[in-house]
Amino acid sequence: MRFDIITLFPEFFSTPLKTGLMAKALDRGIASVVLTNPRDFTEDRHHTVDDEPYGGGVGMVMKPAPLFAAVESLPVLPRREIIYVTPQGEPLRQQHLWEWAKHRDQLVILCGHYEGVDERVVEHLVTQEISIGDFVLTCGEIPALTILNGVLRLLPGTVGKAASLQQESFEDGLLDYPHYTRPAEFRGWPVPSVLLSGHHENIAKWRKAQQIERTRQRRPDLYQRWLAQQP
Amino acid sequence: MRFDIITLFPEFFSTPLKTGLMAKALDRGIASVVLTNPRDFTEDRHHTVDDEPYGGGVGMVMKPAPLFAAVESLPVLPRREIIYVTPQGEPLRQQHLWEWAKHRDQLVILCGHYEGVDERVVEHLVTQEISIGDFVLTCGEIPALTILNGVLRLLPGTVGKAASLQQESFEDGLLDYPHYTRPAEFRGWPVPSVLLSGHHENIAKWRKAQQIERTRQRRPDLYQRWLAQQP
Repeated sequence: MRFDIITLFPEFFSTPLKTGLMAKALDRGIASVVLTNPRDFTEDRHHTVDDEPYGGGVGMVMKPAPLFAAVESLPVLPRREIIYVTPQGEPLRQQHLWEWAKHRDQLVILCGHYEGVDERVVEHLVTQEISIGDFVLTCGEIPALTILNGVLRLLPGTVGKAASLQQESFEDGLLDYPHYTRPAEFRGWPVPSVLLSGHHENIAKWRKAQQIERTRQRRPDLYQRWLAQQP
Repeated sequence: MRFDIITLFPEFFSTPLKTGLMAKALDRGIASVVLTNPRDFTEDRHHTVDDEPYGGGVGMVMKPAPLFAAVESLPVLPRREIIYVTPQGEPLRQQHLWEWAKHRDQLVILCGHYEGVDERVVEHLVTQEISIGDFVLTCGEIPALTILNGVLRLLPGTVGKAASLQQESFEDGLLDYPHYTRPAEFRGWPVPSVLLSGHHENIAKWRKAQQIERTRQRRPDLYQRWLAQQP
């Protein structure tokens, strides 16, 4: 898998990509990350990447030409997606991450800045608009890192055991169950006794019940969807 | 505002915090970010921060003692929130960011790793569980950076014009309108003519109509909520 990140701030990514599981996966060659700066594709001597919005209003808009030129400078792999991260996009779900991890060779991720990019970039260059949530950030670099990390961990070889990917939040439509580790009592708070029982069937039942109850209480939206899928 | 980030990988944050608006805001003293590593609060000579889950299962769980000790080592400001970023949390919304930016002096953000933290940390230390979306990442550092960035930009002095904060996605319950900048025609694709008309009232009407129509098409959930709030 090749990730191309189109960013005005390539230096943003230096230490995150050198940390933890992402660093390991990239070191092992499971994926590669290439950073491309649209500022290198400007033709004026001030390297202008933004300009005032037509119709007035506050803030600046990213010009179309440097973004088109930056993307067009990249090699094109067979199954490519060009993602623009924006609050206007489709809300990111675990299914998107699986879809890209399994069925794409190249993810190009455009990071917006200021008030966003010229709409012609969205209409004629981008293939998918994705939102990481109903909130606003100063830059697209954090959502880009979110997508990169979420896809990278699903690629074979990144996370130690494939089982670890199956037993987690959202994979069965429910939230995760609570986890406990030693000590059995901490500051007077004990671990639920069933977990110390060694009775595997009871533990599995308790965990499933916890998953269902937490999802019902915390996320009625997910709970209703899960209920509808039960036989 | 003081941000305390409890992280096993403080080095992750080096270059993101030196980039763009976040760097500017921190340089100006609008907020401070303190990174604390739970590994520095372990008492064994291997500095163990994780252990096997009670009841079995794949993956490791973060031990309670180093996390309690790390948080308890911090100064306590008057209005403090201790946030754990987890897919099990309440979905992050723009309103959370405003609430924290306006009414908190200190945000302590716990970054999970592995299968997550011992549940006693969530029950007895954390004051708020927050999810940045229905997807799974390898680490809590990216969600922590999301919250930090989202709150920081709302603090007075970070973003140039206060007006810029009002005219954006979610602030009025609708998605943003499309933005355009020069050239008026790019590769044969023109800017919508109303934006070149100089007629401010028509431009405002067109933008509002675009906001409503996009929200209706792309996010029926937000659209229904917006509709219900109209007089």
